[in-house]
Amino acid sequence: MPEYPTALGASTPDTITLLGHDLAADVMGEVGFGELAFWLATQRRPSPGEVRVFEAVLAALADHGFTPTAIVTRLTYLSAPDSVQGALAAGLLGGGSRFLGVTEDCGRFLHEVIVAHDPLPAEEPGWDALALDTVRARRESGRLIPGLGHHVHKNGDPRTPRLFEIAEEEGLLGPHLSLFAAIGRVHPQVLGRTLPLNGAGVCGAALADLGLPLELLRGFALLARTAGLIGQLAEELRRPVANEIFLSVDLNNRSIPPEPFPSPDGGSHD
Amino acid sequence: MPEYPTALGASTPDTITLLGHDLAADVMGEVGFGELAFWLATQRRPSPGEVRVFEAVLAALADHGFTPTAIVTRLTYLSAPDSVQGALAAGLLGGGSRFLGVTEDCGRFLHEVIVAHDPLPAEEPGWDALALDTVRARRESGRLIPGLGHHVHKNGDPRTPRLFEIAEEEGLLGPHLSLFAAIGRVHPQVLGRTLPLNGAGVCGAALADLGLPLELLRGFALLARTAGLIGQLAEELRRPVANEIFLSVDLNNRSIPPEPFPSPDGGSHD
Amino acid sequence: MPEYPTALGASTPDTITLLGHDLAADVMGEVGFGELAFWLATQRRPSPGEVRVFEAVLAALADHGFTPTAIVTRLTYLSAPDSVQGALAAGLLGGGSRFLGVTEDCGRFLHEVIVAHDPLPAEEPGWDALALDTVRARRESGRLIPGLGHHVHKNGDPRTPRLFEIAEEEGLLGPHLSLFAAIGRVHPQVLGRTLPLNGAGVCGAALADLGLPLELLRGFALLARTAGLIGQLAEELRRPVANEIFLSVDLNNRSIPPEPFPSPDGGSHD
Amino acid sequence: MPEYPTALGASTPDTITLLGHDLAADVMGEVGFGELAFWLATQRRPSPGEVRVFEAVLAALADHGFTPTAIVTRLTYLSAPDSVQGALAAGLLGGGSRFLGVTEDCGRFLHEVIVAHDPLPAEEPGWDALALDTVRARRESGRLIPGLGHHVHKNGDPRTPRLFEIAEEEGLLGPHLSLFAAIGRVHPQVLGRTLPLNGAGVCGAALADLGLPLELLRGFALLARTAGLIGQLAEELRRPVANEIFLSVDLNNRSIPPEPFPSPDGGSHD
Repeated sequence: MPEYPTALGASTPDTITLLGHDLAADVMGEVGFGELAFWLATQRRPSPGEVRVFEAVLAALADHGFTPTAIVTRLTYLSAPDSVQGALAAGLLGGGSRFLGVTEDCGRFLHEVIVAHDPLPAEEPGWDALALDTVRARRESGRLIPGLGHHVHKNGDPRTPRLFEIAEEEGLLGPHLSLFAAIGRVHPQVLGRTLPLNGAGVCGAALADLGLPLELLRGFALLARTAGLIGQLAEELRRPVANEIFLSVDLNNRSIPPEPFPSPDGGSHD
Repeated sequence: MPEYPTALGASTPDTITLLGHDLAADVMGEVGFGELAFWLATQRRPSPGEVRVFEAVLAALADHGFTPTAIVTRLTYLSAPDSVQGALAAGLLGGGSRFLGVTEDCGRFLHEVIVAHDPLPAEEPGWDALALDTVRARRESGRLIPGLGHHVHKNGDPRTPRLFEIAEEEGLLGPHLSLFAAIGRVHPQVLGRTLPLNGAGVCGAALADLGLPLELLRGFALLARTAGLIGQLAEELRRPVANEIFLSVDLNNRSIPPEPFPSPDGGSHD
Repeated sequence: MPEYPTALGASTPDTITLLGHDLAADVMGEVGFGELAFWLATQRRPSPGEVRVFEAVLAALADHGFTPTAIVTRLTYLSAPDSVQGALAAGLLGGGSRFLGVTEDCGRFLHEVIVAHDPLPAEEPGWDALALDTVRARRESGRLIPGLGHHVHKNGDPRTPRLFEIAEEEGLLGPHLSLFAAIGRVHPQVLGRTLPLNGAGVCGAALADLGLPLELLRGFALLARTAGLIGQLAEELRRPVANEIFLSVDLNNRSIPPEPFPSPDGGSHD
Repeated sequence: MPEYPTALGASTPDTITLLGHDLAADVMGEVGFGELAFWLATQRRPSPGEVRVFEAVLAALADHGFTPTAIVTRLTYLSAPDSVQGALAAGLLGGGSRFLGVTEDCGRFLHEVIVAHDPLPAEEPGWDALALDTVRARRESGRLIPGLGHHVHKNGDPRTPRLFEIAEEEGLLGPHLSLFAAIGRVHPQVLGRTLPLNGAGVCGAALADLGLPLELLRGFALLARTAGLIGQLAEELRRPVANEIFLSVDLNNRSIPPEPFPSPDGGSHD
């Protein structure tokens, strides 16, 4: 028979352990939820400073109002109120490349630069030089810099300086945040205009500095968002808007004739 | 134009607010993640004691090892590694009536009894009398008592006394927990055998005592489980078992002839 | 080792079978998709008449324009364009009790009446008498009749007579449809007004008459809707509306102060 | 107010239209389900030959036995039997890059080659020359050829010749299938060994030849799989295996100590 090793939850008739600890005695009442989420993902207990930075990231990502994910959760609950799990899952499925993916993309992008440079700069001028090379190379290959720019907070995303500040206070301003900050300082020299370092990007940099698995950075954004979507459902229960959203679309539909695809003039797939 | 009111996330070019507070200044770095999740769901900031009970519940529900939800998340990631959101959503979809639903069912069941009794008992004997009536009525209608019994922890679920203890320490042992405890004391008189009060049930009682919306009790179990599923994915990345699970099923398939439905002898749908 | 029996797909290095048939030789090119879906669900090959009724039901349920499920699929694709499976899954998650559930509820409701009556009526007057009893009993218990009424097609749902006609043509107008038709004739005597038999309801009756598993009637509605949601995505690719839907909500948000729950005056959970 | 144009479902109190046709009169009972799915995706009614090829593809992809998607759907139903939509959605979420993605990847890959060559070859030798260039270029860039190779059907996937045959019969063997066939003939010259053209790949080629939107090729695989997953659920209802699968994993778990990440010796994220 195959065996399936795990360090996560396990139980016997008399005990329940989680990560090798007695769940009832050592975890319940002793470990905060952010701390536990970090611990589950890394199998090491974070320091209080790490927890503070991690929870600041989760707070930054938990809810951004009427995003597509929030609207989707509310509409799905309207349509299938018997399944809270379905409403939450539907909302999380919007957590892909466009709306929640910046966190992961930014963390990965910074990490690729960092692992390719040894030794890393010790001081700000060194980071600026590395950032300048990075932004130039990225620009030459025609690709955007993840984490740069915001469609609303054009003059600066208030989450960004705050997260730098918290990381600094906790002594956790590591290479990913350092490089990200340097990109914020030098990119105008290359791009010819000043863009804000956005909140999703700085969160990715901070999560990478915490040593969390890069493949799952999007997962932490989704964890934060799960709390936000529960908040959306709780508000929907008391101040429903989903039916009005639905009607605002349905009543403004405009019937048009079918448009055959591919087009009759031989227009291509694209 | 319709308007969509919300007290959750909102932003202007220069500010971001959440629940009426400045996100960067007042929430990030100041509010723990469990605390924030509670706040989002109730729109009121919980006390430290409420946070401790709430996070103890989340810890109790975060991960139970190789549950169907954990297996599903791992298999979905195996099959579609490009979509972490899909793997997490798939796992959460198992959070329905059977595996994660006890928390909600128990909270609702206790609440129904409580709202129907005014005034509520002040002392243990009074709770025992109410519990006895409740168990008897339930039994006579042929229905099970939510939260009673466990297929593994037959002599007692270690989470249950611990959660009572934490609630007691924080002065938050309210009517739902009181009634649940009384059911634990009196049910042998009616059922003729002693069953444990299970962990999922006591979590439902505690969440109800915290005043969280009953319609969303399952949602909090899902929030806890999201952290657990991220842990499952993190472990899968380093110690993969999903492919072996898949093969252990696929290689042990046994081809049988089709069995027409409904059966040819006119057997009914059921 | 456990074994897992199945009559569905199986393969060896040289062959692939499905339902005991050679997939390449006997299924591909020979079996239509509606026919195959029926066969997979019942493990018996349907007659051409059964296929025609079944596919008429799927056509009736495939797409209803800008329903919540359609909006959800479009918004999820906007937010996570990397995951078509996520966009489709999110849309299907709206297929619950309210929007797609009538089909299942109606099929089950009719079936419960039918299995409780032996012998069943042979003629219209007998069905009318049974329907009258059924509607009266339902009304006395304060419950609605599934499949009766429509918020738009108040004078009659055009799908309903058409599906009766197709079933009649194919000799497949069985007891569920007969009872449903009788309910349409007699309910005004009890309710005091005439309501249309709606399309979702007649679909449930027809699927039940085809002998499909009642537990999965909702599943057939979801299969039909999957085709519809692909159509929604295809249209979204060429005539995108999701971003405008999102903005129409987000830009019309109205920030309100938090409303603590439960309310400070001790308002209950409900 | 914004307007949302659509050629899909629309209704007035007296009529329901779909793709500009009267749903009840012109679609129900007249249009097969595969035909309708094609029509919805392209807004043009396919020819009978196109329908036959399309439905052959759907048959080829509908069910492959105990795949991760099938196991996931069964486990999710075990865990949340109240939500058929959740069980189906969870299974579909496995339809990503690894298990169902070959169809899409292969169609896109072939299409990229084809749009870059004008005029296209008219005869087999010309296709072989183009295929040889294509395989060589792909190999030099270190990338695999989508649709080439199968872990079980090492000597040939029986679906592949059958689909070529059906397309040939219907006069629908277009450039994508022609190039794919040529790759099958010439790749041993470059790779030094003969690999089978797999079924998922040939399905992608056939769907691309039908002119279906490339962005949604995965969607058609998911439509086919929805029918298969309903079959899996129907079988699970009568011959349940999900609980045994769950127990075969859970009872063979092996508790191991946590493995801190990143590793204490400074091992990197990767």
